[in-house]
Amino acid sequence: MRIGVLTAGGDCPGLNAVIRSVVHRALVGHGDEVIGFEDGFKGLLDGHHRPLDINAVSGILARGGTILGSARMERARLHEAAENANELARRYGLDALIPIGGEGTLTASRMLADAGMPVVGVPKTIDNDISATDRTFGFDTAVTVATEAMDRLKTTAESHQRVMVVEVMGRHAGWIALESGMAGGAHGICLPERPFQVDDLVKMVEERFSRGKKFAVVCVAEGAHPAAGSMPYERGEIDQYGHERFAGIGNRLAVELENRLGKEARPVILGHVQRGGVPTAYDRVLATRFGWHAVEAVHRGDFGNMTALRGTEIVMAPLAAAVAELKTVPEHRMSEAESVF
Amino acid sequence: MRIGVLTAGGDCPGLNAVIRSVVHRALVGHGDEVIGFEDGFKGLLDGHHRPLDINAVSGILARGGTILGSARMERARLHEAAENANELARRYGLDALIPIGGEGTLTASRMLADAGMPVVGVPKTIDNDISATDRTFGFDTAVTVATEAMDRLKTTAESHQRVMVVEVMGRHAGWIALESGMAGGAHGICLPERPFQVDDLVKMVEERFSRGKKFAVVCVAEGAHPAAGSMPYERGEIDQYGHERFAGIGNRLAVELENRLGKEARPVILGHVQRGGVPTAYDRVLATRFGWHAVEAVHRGDFGNMTALRGTEIVMAPLAAAVAELKTVPEHRMSEAESVF
Amino acid sequence: MRIGVLTAGGDCPGLNAVIRSVVHRALVGHGDEVIGFEDGFKGLLDGHHRPLDINAVSGILARGGTILGSARMERARLHEAAENANELARRYGLDALIPIGGEGTLTASRMLADAGMPVVGVPKTIDNDISATDRTFGFDTAVTVATEAMDRLKTTAESHQRVMVVEVMGRHAGWIALESGMAGGAHGICLPERPFQVDDLVKMVEERFSRGKKFAVVCVAEGAHPAAGSMPYERGEIDQYGHERFAGIGNRLAVELENRLGKEARPVILGHVQRGGVPTAYDRVLATRFGWHAVEAVHRGDFGNMTALRGTEIVMAPLAAAVAELKTVPEHRMSEAESVF
Amino acid sequence: MRIGVLTAGGDCPGLNAVIRSVVHRALVGHGDEVIGFEDGFKGLLDGHHRPLDINAVSGILARGGTILGSARMERARLHEAAENANELARRYGLDALIPIGGEGTLTASRMLADAGMPVVGVPKTIDNDISATDRTFGFDTAVTVATEAMDRLKTTAESHQRVMVVEVMGRHAGWIALESGMAGGAHGICLPERPFQVDDLVKMVEERFSRGKKFAVVCVAEGAHPAAGSMPYERGEIDQYGHERFAGIGNRLAVELENRLGKEARPVILGHVQRGGVPTAYDRVLATRFGWHAVEAVHRGDFGNMTALRGTEIVMAPLAAAVAELKTVPEHRMSEAESVF
Repeated sequence: MRIGVLTAGGDCPGLNAVIRSVVHRALVGHGDEVIGFEDGFKGLLDGHHRPLDINAVSGILARGGTILGSARMERARLHEAAENANELARRYGLDALIPIGGEGTLTASRMLADAGMPVVGVPKTIDNDISATDRTFGFDTAVTVATEAMDRLKTTAESHQRVMVVEVMGRHAGWIALESGMAGGAHGICLPERPFQVDDLVKMVEERFSRGKKFAVVCVAEGAHPAAGSMPYERGEIDQYGHERFAGIGNRLAVELENRLGKEARPVILGHVQRGGVPTAYDRVLATRFGWHAVEAVHRGDFGNMTALRGTEIVMAPLAAAVAELKTVPEHRMSEAESVF
Repeated sequence: MRIGVLTAGGDCPGLNAVIRSVVHRALVGHGDEVIGFEDGFKGLLDGHHRPLDINAVSGILARGGTILGSARMERARLHEAAENANELARRYGLDALIPIGGEGTLTASRMLADAGMPVVGVPKTIDNDISATDRTFGFDTAVTVATEAMDRLKTTAESHQRVMVVEVMGRHAGWIALESGMAGGAHGICLPERPFQVDDLVKMVEERFSRGKKFAVVCVAEGAHPAAGSMPYERGEIDQYGHERFAGIGNRLAVELENRLGKEARPVILGHVQRGGVPTAYDRVLATRFGWHAVEAVHRGDFGNMTALRGTEIVMAPLAAAVAELKTVPEHRMSEAESVF
Repeated sequence: MRIGVLTAGGDCPGLNAVIRSVVHRALVGHGDEVIGFEDGFKGLLDGHHRPLDINAVSGILARGGTILGSARMERARLHEAAENANELARRYGLDALIPIGGEGTLTASRMLADAGMPVVGVPKTIDNDISATDRTFGFDTAVTVATEAMDRLKTTAESHQRVMVVEVMGRHAGWIALESGMAGGAHGICLPERPFQVDDLVKMVEERFSRGKKFAVVCVAEGAHPAAGSMPYERGEIDQYGHERFAGIGNRLAVELENRLGKEARPVILGHVQRGGVPTAYDRVLATRFGWHAVEAVHRGDFGNMTALRGTEIVMAPLAAAVAELKTVPEHRMSEAESVF
Repeated sequence: MRIGVLTAGGDCPGLNAVIRSVVHRALVGHGDEVIGFEDGFKGLLDGHHRPLDINAVSGILARGGTILGSARMERARLHEAAENANELARRYGLDALIPIGGEGTLTASRMLADAGMPVVGVPKTIDNDISATDRTFGFDTAVTVATEAMDRLKTTAESHQRVMVVEVMGRHAGWIALESGMAGGAHGICLPERPFQVDDLVKMVEERFSRGKKFAVVCVAEGAHPAAGSMPYERGEIDQYGHERFAGIGNRLAVELENRLGKEARPVILGHVQRGGVPTAYDRVLATRFGWHAVEAVHRGDFGNMTALRGTEIVMAPLAAAVAELKTVPEHRMSEAESVF
């Protein structure tokens, strides 16, 4: 068989591990041929691709980024791809295409599948917000980086008698904030899923200091927002070019807490360090298994689906289910985190 | 309520995270009282315990070891404990006991539960071999340590043109070898679950070198053993005191491979570094959730069970199920690993 | 002898290692007595202190923060301390005082020494800007944290085709930016010691992209500033309270580069993660040696000095020399870094 | 100018950083040409080399191993190289050769230099035992790896009430044992430089346990040996092939301590994990500076020397001085370490 593979969307630790696994399983396990399209769907449309043999994927398991490159693409061109799905498959002689990507990529994959392209998707997001799979690779690495930062911040916060506001990734789903907040021992966690009351955070900090504690750490997802009326300092800074800048919730919440508490509060915006670099062992295993099972699905003719983790097993889930709705943090998971403040 | 907690068996990253979570949830969430027994069941029998308040568990989330100590105990004394279960509960005014431990501890917990002690167990093993739960805390840390070692070994193996035999923990179940072998990119993985053929390893190495590769890494669980007749150098060294010593499979396999291949093969026995120290973020989250749910189970009167991970959720599983049989690596998981050599 | 020890100023990985080493050397090596003053000079003035025995310093070698606490103190009270130096020494029966701290602390130490207090200082600064010593502990940890962040950022920058502006600590001296920039492979490094030309950075990025590279990393010390006229977007944001906020050079430079290059540029402000947490092995060794030699100096009556690293050896340097002028990055060190862009 | 570069001897974190720096400085700074010989001096003799441009060294700064390969060579062929030094320089049109390597490589480099080859050496050894330089790259990484292992081992040792014997690298010089022992908080450190008394270790452990401590860690260099008569269990195991195997001092000392103390003692042999993988920030900076200064020396015509760290500066030291004698741990450095048990 001749299998195409591509990576699309933002960086995510584990992409290379999937590519490597696809190539190993296809070539060694099945005697297939694998070609890699460059820069995501762009490579598919524009004909940029290269053969991937064992040597091409040597030494990449632990490397961040993607050897195939990745680029965002306009929706119009994706529709173009979908309309020409059959023709594209024929042009490259593809028996199957394995796109590795996030929500956008999976939606595009579904369009291609609906248009007749034999597609097996592999879900990717550091945010862990794709439905139909227990976890996605990249998430564990992001949580690990954020947790290590909180570990370091605590001794500093303590010796300076400060409140630290750590902003982590997560625009629409608060999984990174939830798990890194729990693992890093944050005393307050703010998620996009539930507007937070600044008063609650103020009370928490005051209660801690009254018990003789000398610091507090608040972990806030970039997409978290205060309950209406809870935080007056709402608007972000407007720069000389008229853009709203440096207005992230982490910065704003630190200002607000400092003003209310009369104690130093400092923002730490972790930003892009969370989404790159060497993947954790967990993410390498999950990514490797996803790649292996994607190839197996190809050989079973199990198209229109994506790989998914369900408990300890890798299963196939319909692409439609994956993109139907965002997987957000349910109420009972927040409750578990609340008692460890 | 008055809840007792104890840790028993060997070291495992995450023990302190469970203790902290139990105390937080019980005190802050329910207004309970918590006492910690020292050195496992020994403290229960001998009356060594201390109250655990919020300050007692401050700063321990990320710390290895256990603030309560742990000690192995003879079976006879465990029976003594079981026979006096009711009396012991009365003596300390316990409404519930939360023992945190491995197979032995859970077996003892079941005996206590059968004898009338209101027990909620929390499973612990770096080996990940306890049935009825998808994963246990400590395992991810062990896999991470082993993977980091393999990452380092590869450049050295390459520049010396060597075969590296990395022995990891796992006497009866090969989970650590499986996952660290996959994550570390080992070219051969030997598990206790399936006797290995030295010939297969020899062929794999020769095939690699014939392709121009300059090294190979074999990851072997300490409990792995060669298929009958596959490895002549079977017996371990006998020292001057008549003990069989330094006879681990890692050492023996390295000797065997060197003899057969005519290439340098070096054993690296990771040993105890795998089971101590700072837990990974994953293990801290799992341990914290286990502690939280153990307290909830106590308040529901859900005794005779242990906490368990099932998919993304924490559920309760009967202690009987947990210790009924060892959870070993199934055949299909080995297959997934094989193609990434 | 009776020796007092205190830590003053901000957090710095290695403080606990010094305290531990002082206690070990004094108690075990000389049979001395050691008392620890709490919260820096405040504890000395207010009489908050406690005896430090071997158990008091058990397990703290690798721990961030300081078990003695630290607090900044107004200059007036420091003068009060200096005026009462003799009386203070008598009050606590001190044969010597070992203050561990940065420039301010060493200046205060010198005042105390001049006023008759038998003082041996230990220099501390993550910024590495204290004269008379080759290095200070804490610096290696800060450089390591910043380097690891740049390692992670590179794969992300590459897959997003972006310029990353990483702001590291260093208000007056650029050592952290210099060494983490070199170690992290930054393509541009901006130091407080030399105003930078935005044009040079623009050219560097354009040259890289023209060579087919897909990203660039600029490492900028928080105290770096553009050459006059080099960067119009000079002033920081003014918030609704009239404060200049979020106006760090990292943020401003990212905006400027994005505007000029027409490419995405993203700031990453590492902030306080650089100055807390577990010290590196290097810092633990240096801190331990400083503590040992401080006690030896006490026993030699070698007062008014501080410990210093000179090549491979620990020597004593006059406190006066240490605070005479800031140790900044010399021109030839910048040249070394420039060629590895 | 046309500059050759090669790496010889065992793996050492930082080799690639030197190569990269040489290429950057030579090409960008001076407009030179650089060629890399493969597999050390073998490539020089056998004509295996390739041009190194900026792209060839892209992304290798943080990577372990060496992109040029390395191989040990028989002394006879080295003499052959020396005899043909002029002819070799002419054959490749070399204006200078920069060999990067350990004691053997530097000795060979000196022979080549004496025979007329324009040579600038770069010293490399994880053991830190080369004279005339304060430190060598690779050493900090080795110490870091060993320290992290000891950090992990402590919680396990404590919960098992055990003595841990950690064997680290260092056949003739004990620098790694000294510094990792200090940084990892070992309670006993055994170096090749001074035969150790087992009795002293036994006393130390007993004293610790009598103070209520539950574990002890002994850090022993692979080249350490007991004082005569101090340890009866002297000889290593003889295997069925007549080889003495598994007879390292770590294993033997653990057996001896267990026998004498009546407490569990476990060896951990760190082995090759110490000498491979990603270099620390410190080692990357030192390696980068060495590369830069090697090129400068070439342009000054400063041949027959090697780069060396002296305090904070890189200087040139005669190759003769570098290999004249091994740099071992002096007595006063051992004293510093002794008080922190």
